[in-house]
Amino acid sequence: MSDRDDRWLGEVRWNADGLVPAIAQEAGTGRVLTLAWMNHEALATTARTGEVHYWSRSRRALWKKGETSGHVQKVKDIRIDCDADAVLVSVEQVGGVACHTGHGRCFYRTLVDGVWREDEPVLKDPVAIYGEGR
Amino acid sequence: MSDRDDRWLGEVRWNADGLVPAIAQEAGTGRVLTLAWMNHEALATTARTGEVHYWSRSRRALWKKGETSGHVQKVKDIRIDCDADAVLVSVEQVGGVACHTGHGRCFYRTLVDGVWREDEPVLKDPVAIYGEGR
Repeated sequence: MSDRDDRWLGEVRWNADGLVPAIAQEAGTGRVLTLAWMNHEALATTARTGEVHYWSRSRRALWKKGETSGHVQKVKDIRIDCDADAVLVSVEQVGGVACHTGHGRCFYRTLVDGVWREDEPVLKDPVAIYGEGR
Repeated sequence: MSDRDDRWLGEVRWNADGLVPAIAQEAGTGRVLTLAWMNHEALATTARTGEVHYWSRSRRALWKKGETSGHVQKVKDIRIDCDADAVLVSVEQVGGVACHTGHGRCFYRTLVDGVWREDEPVLKDPVAIYGEGR
């Protein structure tokens, strides 16, 4: 990538760990699916390939969303906020399941009377997604 | 607040600085407006008052969204993600302007041909929102 092509990446205000939070929003429905983290390589790879890549903070590795599950997120649009420290990616969620729990998205719990209540269903058994070994 | 009432706050996985990222999404349109940060007090106050409060990392202070501008965010729903380290708040955006730049939301730039291009208008002059002194 040339210096010029790279300029948009240089405008991102990475945090002390070299990361920005990235929100994935489903293009068709507008549902917010996930919040995860990207480093320079993840955002560059997301833009280049058209498939969302994150940085796994637990595994300390580049992570292509859906690499194991097949539940890839295809990029429609990448936005950045006013102070350039958060990213919003409009995606098509392949398989309709964004969360490793098998829910359609990670935000499947809502606050009701002081309790986080699950109000969205598991769409696919995680064992069916990842196998017994996980 | 009693220990029991406080339990849902105890389930949040705050980062090393005691914060979680909080996404504000407009209830009517589904538009993602802002990503900001909440500490324990901000999230508790948001839930108690029904108006969104954040933690200002630059000012190191509790910050009621719209306290100066009047552009309050009224809470419809508070969600948490699978690993309890991100919050999604469905809001009514009073005044239709979420961003201090006067744009309708903070995510007013999109990546086009390697450039962050502004594709949403300023709805209100920041000087009219905050005055000359800002």
